[in-house]
Amino acid sequence: MVIHRNEMKTEVREKMRGGEGSAAFVHFADCEKEKNIRMLAEVTLQPGSSVGKHNHENETEYYIILSGSGMVDDNGKEVQIKTGDTIITGGGAFHSIANTGSVPLVFHAVIVTW
Amino acid sequence: MVIHRNEMKTEVREKMRGGEGSAAFVHFADCEKEKNIRMLAEVTLQPGSSVGKHNHENETEYYIILSGSGMVDDNGKEVQIKTGDTIITGGGAFHSIANTGSVPLVFHAVIVTW
Repeated sequence: MVIHRNEMKTEVREKMRGGEGSAAFVHFADCEKEKNIRMLAEVTLQPGSSVGKHNHENETEYYIILSGSGMVDDNGKEVQIKTGDTIITGGGAFHSIANTGSVPLVFHAVIVTW
Repeated sequence: MVIHRNEMKTEVREKMRGGEGSAAFVHFADCEKEKNIRMLAEVTLQPGSSVGKHNHENETEYYIILSGSGMVDDNGKEVQIKTGDTIITGGGAFHSIANTGSVPLVFHAVIVTW
C-alpha cells in the first residue's frame, strides 16, 4: 500500500506530556491497522517547544533526528542531539526532547510494541 | 540510549534483491538487541539503482521517502513515489523500489516483525 503525503492524518498536540509549546504530527500509517507498531510519524517541534518526560513500558520508542538540534533527557542523562542521531527508549526507561535551537526540530517517532 | 550519526554502522549492498546498482545503508540501531524490529535504517539509492522485488512474511516493512523520487512495484501495482510518501508491505505482499529520478532517492526502512 502506498500512502501519499497529502493523504496523511495530521494533528497538533499542545504541551505534550507536560512539555512546552506544541508538537505537530504527520502520521505515516494508520497504526490501528498495523501489527506491533503504535506510532510511525514525523514530529516537528518549533524552537522552545518540547515533549515532556515520559516512559515506555512493554514497547520501545525510536526518535530519528531529521533536522535541527535539541536536548534529550535520556533516562536521567542530558544529551545534546542533532541531525542523524537516534534516541532509543524502552523497557520502562523515560525520555523527553526539547528544541533548544533556532530552527524547527524534525524527527521520526517509531513506537514498536513488545 | 543515544546513538550519534558517526557511531552508526554503514554498509553498501550491491544488486540488492536482484536490483540494479547499489543500496547504501546507515543503521540507526543494532536491531539484534531490539524487540520486534529487524531493520531501522536510512537507505540511499543513486539514480538508476534499485532494490529488486521481494516479499515480507510475518513482518511489515515501511518505506518512508525522505528525498528524491522513484517507482515502486506495490504488490503488482506500479506507483510513482516522491518525498513524504510511505510504502507499507507485509503479510506476504511484495515490493520493489527504483530511483528513476536524477537525484539520490533517500528513505527510511523499518521492518517490524509479528
